Amino acid sequence: MKFFDDIAVGERAELGVHTFTADDIRRFARKYDPQPFHLDEAAAARSHFGALCASGWHTAAVWMRLMVGHLRREDEAQRARGEAVASFGPSPGFRELKWLKPVYAGDAVTYSTEIAAKRPSNSRPDWGLMSFRNTGVNQRGEPVISFVSVAFVERRPAKGAA
Amino acid sequence: MKFFDDIAVGERAELGVHTFTADDIRRFARKYDPQPFHLDEAAAARSHFGALCASGWHTAAVWMRLMVGHLRREDEAQRARGEAVASFGPSPGFRELKWLKPVYAGDAVTYSTEIAAKRPSNSRPDWGLMSFRNTGVNQRGEPVISFVSVAFVERRPAKGAA
Repeated sequence: MKFFDDIAVGERAELGVHTFTADDIRRFARKYDPQPFHLDEAAAARSHFGALCASGWHTAAVWMRLMVGHLRREDEAQRARGEAVASFGPSPGFRELKWLKPVYAGDAVTYSTEIAAKRPSNSRPDWGLMSFRNTGVNQRGEPVISFVSVAFVERRPAKGAA
Repeated sequence: MKFFDDIAVGERAELGVHTFTADDIRRFARKYDPQPFHLDEAAAARSHFGALCASGWHTAAVWMRLMVGHLRREDEAQRARGEAVASFGPSPGFRELKWLKPVYAGDAVTYSTEIAAKRPSNSRPDWGLMSFRNTGVNQRGEPVISFVSVAFVERRPAKGAA
């Protein structure tokens, strides 16, 4: 990851695409969200969703995995260029998570992230706080998930510092 | 679940306790949040967390599972008393998710939910919107997660309606 000081508000990255298969949807639901419309086609057909669809927590967890993969690829590219790599620190949390449309079995969701805001940390002088506006859009171009995540990102060490 | 009309702001329920074992933490992390401090004790010891700890999305997903179990037990108790059971509808999302402390391997988190607000739905007259303030507290009494979720809950059918 780039250092806090080198990241501009408005920078945007595509994180990847995930296809939510019926098996994938049921596997997550059995462990974390065992509601009938996430587990069983027939029950889902009778529900307000009308067909098997993914747990909202599943669509959020997949964002996390794609974000981690994206940061890893970015780190590797920086190292390949001989650049120092900043640490991605803990996240204090998330805001305004919206599940905008159901994600049905077979839907392919493309996730993106955009730098929404940044500010130096008051409590940790070596770190800054970045806000990311994250979105997932299905194969019909419809947004299905949107949220703002916040995370600590390392600041560039001062010149001459250890 | 009780009908929207029969639920009072301030009602509170304990959802259950989950112990986050190291295996459990690594299993979730491998699939959804493969960062070193969620996967490997030695790497976690060197990180800002200091020890293996759960993905924040894992602590949220466990809330969902315990909430589903709680609603199911509530439904069964209502049916045993011969009462009608309301449907728990889709969730438009959540707000203000805060990961307040790391959840380390071996930590036991007790989850609770409290009705924070309610209002009739404008778009769906048969439904109301409920806000739940959800919290997880570890075995030392420290809050580790807090968020507000919103979900549709069925309204009591009008007397004389089909």
